[in-house]
Amino acid sequence: MTTNFIDSEIIDFKVNAYQNGEFSEISKQDTLGKWGIYFFYPADFSFVCPTELGDLADHYTDFQKVNAEIYSVSEDSEFVHKAWAEATDTIAKVRYPMLADPAGKLARFFNVLDEESGLAFRAVFIVDPEGKIQSYTINNMGIGRNAEEILRTLEAAQFVAEHGDRVCPANWHPGEDTITPSLDLVGKL
Amino acid sequence: MTTNFIDSEIIDFKVNAYQNGEFSEISKQDTLGKWGIYFFYPADFSFVCPTELGDLADHYTDFQKVNAEIYSVSEDSEFVHKAWAEATDTIAKVRYPMLADPAGKLARFFNVLDEESGLAFRAVFIVDPEGKIQSYTINNMGIGRNAEEILRTLEAAQFVAEHGDRVCPANWHPGEDTITPSLDLVGKL
Amino acid sequence: MTTNFIDSEIIDFKVNAYQNGEFSEISKQDTLGKWGIYFFYPADFSFVCPTELGDLADHYTDFQKVNAEIYSVSEDSEFVHKAWAEATDTIAKVRYPMLADPAGKLARFFNVLDEESGLAFRAVFIVDPEGKIQSYTINNMGIGRNAEEILRTLEAAQFVAEHGDRVCPANWHPGEDTITPSLDLVGKL
Amino acid sequence: MTTNFIDSEIIDFKVNAYQNGEFSEISKQDTLGKWGIYFFYPADFSFVCPTELGDLADHYTDFQKVNAEIYSVSEDSEFVHKAWAEATDTIAKVRYPMLADPAGKLARFFNVLDEESGLAFRAVFIVDPEGKIQSYTINNMGIGRNAEEILRTLEAAQFVAEHGDRVCPANWHPGEDTITPSLDLVGKL
Amino acid sequence: MTTNFIDSEIIDFKVNAYQNGEFSEISKQDTLGKWGIYFFYPADFSFVCPTELGDLADHYTDFQKVNAEIYSVSEDSEFVHKAWAEATDTIAKVRYPMLADPAGKLARFFNVLDEESGLAFRAVFIVDPEGKIQSYTINNMGIGRNAEEILRTLEAAQFVAEHGDRVCPANWHPGEDTITPSLDLVGKL
Amino acid sequence: MTTNFIDSEIIDFKVNAYQNGEFSEISKQDTLGKWGIYFFYPADFSFVCPTELGDLADHYTDFQKVNAEIYSVSEDSEFVHKAWAEATDTIAKVRYPMLADPAGKLARFFNVLDEESGLAFRAVFIVDPEGKIQSYTINNMGIGRNAEEILRTLEAAQFVAEHGDRVCPANWHPGEDTITPSLDLVGKL
Amino acid sequence: MTTNFIDSEIIDFKVNAYQNGEFSEISKQDTLGKWGIYFFYPADFSFVCPTELGDLADHYTDFQKVNAEIYSVSEDSEFVHKAWAEATDTIAKVRYPMLADPAGKLARFFNVLDEESGLAFRAVFIVDPEGKIQSYTINNMGIGRNAEEILRTLEAAQFVAEHGDRVCPANWHPGEDTITPSLDLVGKL
Amino acid sequence: MTTNFIDSEIIDFKVNAYQNGEFSEISKQDTLGKWGIYFFYPADFSFVCPTELGDLADHYTDFQKVNAEIYSVSEDSEFVHKAWAEATDTIAKVRYPMLADPAGKLARFFNVLDEESGLAFRAVFIVDPEGKIQSYTINNMGIGRNAEEILRTLEAAQFVAEHGDRVCPANWHPGEDTITPSLDLVGKL
Amino acid sequence: MTTNFIDSEIIDFKVNAYQNGEFSEISKQDTLGKWGIYFFYPADFSFVCPTELGDLADHYTDFQKVNAEIYSVSEDSEFVHKAWAEATDTIAKVRYPMLADPAGKLARFFNVLDEESGLAFRAVFIVDPEGKIQSYTINNMGIGRNAEEILRTLEAAQFVAEHGDRVCPANWHPGEDTITPSLDLVGKL
Amino acid sequence: MTTNFIDSEIIDFKVNAYQNGEFSEISKQDTLGKWGIYFFYPADFSFVCPTELGDLADHYTDFQKVNAEIYSVSEDSEFVHKAWAEATDTIAKVRYPMLADPAGKLARFFNVLDEESGLAFRAVFIVDPEGKIQSYTINNMGIGRNAEEILRTLEAAQFVAEHGDRVCPANWHPGEDTITPSLDLVGKL
Repeated sequence: MTTNFIDSEIIDFKVNAYQNGEFSEISKQDTLGKWGIYFFYPADFSFVCPTELGDLADHYTDFQKVNAEIYSVSEDSEFVHKAWAEATDTIAKVRYPMLADPAGKLARFFNVLDEESGLAFRAVFIVDPEGKIQSYTINNMGIGRNAEEILRTLEAAQFVAEHGDRVCPANWHPGEDTITPSLDLVGKL
Repeated sequence: MTTNFIDSEIIDFKVNAYQNGEFSEISKQDTLGKWGIYFFYPADFSFVCPTELGDLADHYTDFQKVNAEIYSVSEDSEFVHKAWAEATDTIAKVRYPMLADPAGKLARFFNVLDEESGLAFRAVFIVDPEGKIQSYTINNMGIGRNAEEILRTLEAAQFVAEHGDRVCPANWHPGEDTITPSLDLVGKL
Repeated sequence: MTTNFIDSEIIDFKVNAYQNGEFSEISKQDTLGKWGIYFFYPADFSFVCPTELGDLADHYTDFQKVNAEIYSVSEDSEFVHKAWAEATDTIAKVRYPMLADPAGKLARFFNVLDEESGLAFRAVFIVDPEGKIQSYTINNMGIGRNAEEILRTLEAAQFVAEHGDRVCPANWHPGEDTITPSLDLVGKL
Repeated sequence: MTTNFIDSEIIDFKVNAYQNGEFSEISKQDTLGKWGIYFFYPADFSFVCPTELGDLADHYTDFQKVNAEIYSVSEDSEFVHKAWAEATDTIAKVRYPMLADPAGKLARFFNVLDEESGLAFRAVFIVDPEGKIQSYTINNMGIGRNAEEILRTLEAAQFVAEHGDRVCPANWHPGEDTITPSLDLVGKL
Repeated sequence: MTTNFIDSEIIDFKVNAYQNGEFSEISKQDTLGKWGIYFFYPADFSFVCPTELGDLADHYTDFQKVNAEIYSVSEDSEFVHKAWAEATDTIAKVRYPMLADPAGKLARFFNVLDEESGLAFRAVFIVDPEGKIQSYTINNMGIGRNAEEILRTLEAAQFVAEHGDRVCPANWHPGEDTITPSLDLVGKL
Repeated sequence: MTTNFIDSEIIDFKVNAYQNGEFSEISKQDTLGKWGIYFFYPADFSFVCPTELGDLADHYTDFQKVNAEIYSVSEDSEFVHKAWAEATDTIAKVRYPMLADPAGKLARFFNVLDEESGLAFRAVFIVDPEGKIQSYTINNMGIGRNAEEILRTLEAAQFVAEHGDRVCPANWHPGEDTITPSLDLVGKL
Repeated sequence: MTTNFIDSEIIDFKVNAYQNGEFSEISKQDTLGKWGIYFFYPADFSFVCPTELGDLADHYTDFQKVNAEIYSVSEDSEFVHKAWAEATDTIAKVRYPMLADPAGKLARFFNVLDEESGLAFRAVFIVDPEGKIQSYTINNMGIGRNAEEILRTLEAAQFVAEHGDRVCPANWHPGEDTITPSLDLVGKL
Repeated sequence: MTTNFIDSEIIDFKVNAYQNGEFSEISKQDTLGKWGIYFFYPADFSFVCPTELGDLADHYTDFQKVNAEIYSVSEDSEFVHKAWAEATDTIAKVRYPMLADPAGKLARFFNVLDEESGLAFRAVFIVDPEGKIQSYTINNMGIGRNAEEILRTLEAAQFVAEHGDRVCPANWHPGEDTITPSLDLVGKL
Repeated sequence: MTTNFIDSEIIDFKVNAYQNGEFSEISKQDTLGKWGIYFFYPADFSFVCPTELGDLADHYTDFQKVNAEIYSVSEDSEFVHKAWAEATDTIAKVRYPMLADPAGKLARFFNVLDEESGLAFRAVFIVDPEGKIQSYTINNMGIGRNAEEILRTLEAAQFVAEHGDRVCPANWHPGEDTITPSLDLVGKL
Repeated sequence: MTTNFIDSEIIDFKVNAYQNGEFSEISKQDTLGKWGIYFFYPADFSFVCPTELGDLADHYTDFQKVNAEIYSVSEDSEFVHKAWAEATDTIAKVRYPMLADPAGKLARFFNVLDEESGLAFRAVFIVDPEGKIQSYTINNMGIGRNAEEILRTLEAAQFVAEHGDRVCPANWHPGEDTITPSLDLVGKL
């Protein structure tokens, strides 16, 4: 039977990556110890994806401040990532690693590969420092994502990781009051 | 093999519901023709869920304006939904139907039932008027959702449904410019 | 092949419970050493169940006197049991533990879960101190039970457990004469 | 998967019977149109069974008044039933049909045959006029039954059959008040 | 593939028995060391069986003289055997053990149980002191057996057991000449 | 599961036969309308079989008088039957057909083939005019049979075929009194 | 997949035999160390087989001279072989062992049993001293064999066993020239 | 289970052939209506095969006179057959078709392919005009065959085909007396 | 079992392509009627592939003259092909269609996908106008191909397609003599 | 699933061979340590194959100079290879071993056996000194190969084996410049 991904551990992957003009290999092992944002998009050099990657690039320091790394992932090779970065201003400003998944290993594990086109759906997975998935969103082609909402959800997940899962109200942002529940409050909120 | 839910059609369900002091039965047939927001939460009368349901209640007219209906779903019976609404101010203001899923039919189809506890994960599914899933988010227990982001994603999905899937930039909101791509722009954005 | 439950051992369960304003966890291990009365009913906050639970509540000290514990069980959560007890006079007087079985573990083991509605049939199981079922009754929805008959059957089961199974006449109550059979009586009674 | 017997239809049986000095054949067809009480006991000529059969014999007219027939069943032949009735005063007063089930067809269908000893458990099944089981109790060897409780449960089942399954309080007896539930009473009882 | 019973060993059974006013348990172990005559008949208290059992009772000492025990077997309980012996003159004179086989273990092993009626066919099995079947006869219902022929066959089997299987002419009786075959006689008799 | 042969129909066979100096083919079809005695023996020209076949030959007219045919059967060919009849006085007097079963078809159907030696056990089957087996006896090698007892059993089977199966006492012979049972006699004989 | 018999080892058999007025048992073990000629024929006492067996009997000393034993085999018993030898002049002169195969073990291993008739085809197998088949011929019913050709083939097989398999011309007889092949002769003969 | 080839029909083959300097295709259809001698040998251009093929070539007219065709078969191609005939005197005189079986279709059907070496065993099959195998011989490598014996067996098979299978003595040759069997002769020959 | 690709038909594909600044879709149907050269290479923008594609580009008119189309194939998208052509001089001169196979459909059919890296091996398939493969070469990564040899093989395949498969010598080029074989030449060349 | 042969190891074979007038056995073990060229062709003595084998013979010293051995392979026996070499001038000049594969072991492993005709396709496999396949070409019948291209590909494979797989341009020949790639060149060639 299918089960959802919540609390399941990511696979033991090793893929090529492009980052800041260099090629490298990134494995699951390299990603542990930090929160990971796996950000899938359909294809390099295609129409509108750059705006999403640029939106993330603009918030990159916010993610880094809360001990998170961003991994953009498409089914293109690392050679293509490099060529794209050199050819496009928006991608040129990306500083996070761009993973190359031409064999589809990551996209198949995260169940976001469209086998008909060979492209990935737009999806984002928030993975905790132990490699376990805590939140994920999968959109149909064309439905973009929002870097600020990803950041808000990440911070909520971090709050739950620290304080347990019975406390966090909707649309909570760091610094807002949180509720300290007691038995007397059951059924009263 | 598991496949993700994007573009798959929801099951032919029939469940009891509580809405505005009345009991009724709601089936898949009743939901077609409008966009549907299926909003799963763990349990009535439990700690912090009411804030999420209240957040949605506060935005209910915004969803109604764009031809969408909200369905909150938990594994409690309709009797419990009624008792909760009568006992709690936040729930008292809910006007959308609260679905009763004690047999787990909806939660199992949407793959959000935690079989160990018998409770549903916090998840939201955006379903188009033909009953096909266009976006979904599943969070671990405790990670709340954001009514405004659900509304933004719904509107992006509606835009794509109308204009095709190669156009919509990240974090787009209705009224903002959209990009009309041409072949010359490929690789330039 | 199906076999009946007589003399089979109950499963190794662990469920949440509500009792006297507190939440706790009750496992099979906690129930051994005493006779157990597992009393299933369809749903909290539904129409007529309270009268049965109240009937048992009124006889609770009689059961306690003969080393028996009562466990009421429905498919509702412990949060709902608490809310019901606070909302309803009949339930307020219940002193025995009310087990929460939203995952259906107990109802499925005892074969009393109606998978269509997700609710339990009205059923009662008498379990000996070693966890083995000695008597059970399953009624269709709406057919109530009788605390005094449950008590009588419990005492008969206790009598057999002590004196063997060839002695106990119909409708026997403690203190009445029992028959000491001998070979000469075979076929004469 | 095993399912319980509630609402399942009895098999299409045909067995020999002894009644009032005569042999006959009784089939499922003969039992429809009336409520049926199938009363299993271990063995003719054995120690204490006669008291249960006599208890039922004493209440036989009460059952007849509410359109019910009693069928006692053991794994003995009709020849043995006749011999027992001729040899034993308690059995001599039995006026209901005594079914002979040496092939175990009834006991296996009702899941009350102890394959090790070839004898039936003490069990009682209440079957409605369409042949569907509405209530049943199975006791371990030695735990006797109570004709008055069987009659009370039969009358409750008849009440539900007439008025629906959301009405009948615990330990209800004919003539007592019954509750007419309304939506406002939900959660109040 | 089915094989016939000749030279196969009887099962390791344990059944209740009635003999000379007493109840006991008889197992395979108790039967070894002597020749055994297993004599199946349909039912106690039925029409014509007593004449066969009486015929055997009249020849019982003849069987005992040649180190053989007779076991009558029906699907009735030991309680019924006792009641029958007390009610019927013919059975009253039976001195050999009457085995109770209500669970059908012996009748199923010997393949003489009519599953439709739950009764045994009229059959007789001659078993040697090591528990191996040497001769058997199975008749349809109503076709009686002959104690003298059983005795003659037993003695022939005993003769073969002592002298080997190439010697015994048809219808031989103890004391008659037997043929000592030699190679020269092959094809001459 | 193995079942016994009573009331089962014989196979549709066709074998070679030797009778009165001639070869012929005999099929099941040829045997219907008369009672059939199938008399298996191990081997032609072997030690002691002739005495059994001679015993039957001496009673052949008795069998013919009651509309029965005798078929002796061994695993030898018809050529061997002829040679044996020409070489041996006892066999020379046989007038009934001697069936040749070298392919083992009859012996396998009647379950009397010893696969190790390729020879048939000593067995006799009484088959009614419709080809259904009514009685059978199987003996280990060396245990001879008795033509008079076969005749007695045949006549009892014929009596039952005519009068039903609840009438025939042990060791009954034609002309003796038979019992007309009535309900009052149940348990009295 | 079926494979032919060449170089496969004969089974570990043990059968009864008739030879020179005596009965004995012959096993595979007894046949090793000498070449074996297994000569199957359909049936004793049948029409034309004796001429083949007589032809072999006339050449028996030739086979013995080259360390070979002849085994005639039919599906008849040893008793029948003896009777046939006593009744027929041609068989009376046979001095080699006549194997009895009524259980069909040899005929089934050598794949020459006609299951329909239970008789063996006319076949001859030449087996080397290690029990491995070196040559075989199988004829349809009625097609006789030739002792001289069997002898010639045996001697050719013996020659190959001694000198290897690349030397023996067609229709070679002992004493004739054999060819000593060399590489230069390849393709020249 | 494997069965022997007697009376089984040859496969529907089509192979290339070389005959008298020409290439052609020969199919099963071409072979019907005449007796066929399928003569397998290991390899062209190898050591001693030519002598066998030459032996057959010398008797070719004798086979033709009795309406038989010879087909030599090896696993070599038709090109190799032609080259061999041109290079070797013995093969040059062959007039019958030489079949090319490099795909192993014939050798596999006739079960004479040695899969280890890819060569055929020395084997000969006599096939009647309807394509059914009547006799076959398979020899180990090196054991040659005899054209005269093949001819003798062919003629015996033809005699049986015309006169039935109960007549042909051993080593019979055309023109010799044949036996007209009668019932009186059974067991006398 | 695996079979090689010779004479098998290509799958019914439809992929995106880039050619001369335009995007299009190319299906199997579009390729029939001409010879097709499917030229697989590992990746766009990677090290040394361009030289092979340039070598083919330089000979493109030679292929077009003999009614052949070249299809280069990699696992990159059409967007990447376009970007590569715009970024690289060697690719800029390519005029044949560059197929995009990110879903791996073509590479999997032609069995040249390295599942580990998601890249294609260097392979070339020559497909006739009916879509059937006539020649193919697969090289390990890094082993380049030769446009002139592909052209020579194509022309040889075209020659065979026109004149049959028994004529074409090694390393034949159009215009050279070809051999008209006759039966007399067999084995002489 | 089928996989291609690249980098897979050849089977552990042992076949007969003909070379320079001598017969020998060649196994996989004998071929390791040198590069191997396995050159399959349909049949000896057939029309046009000799020209290909002669072309290879003319370049044999070039292959030997780069530590490579050539193995020609057909489904003919070593006897036929010898006869062909003696009959044909072109083959007479062959000095490399000619492998005999009549059992089809090599052709089946390399997947080039046409099971219908039993002949091999024209194919060539380049195997490295560890027995792993580095390049292969399979042509339909009639499409010849080119010794010089085989040599060129062999040398390219040797170059890659020494220098890695990211360097070798199309149609490279030893002595030509090779490209030393650097990251800056990615996408620029």
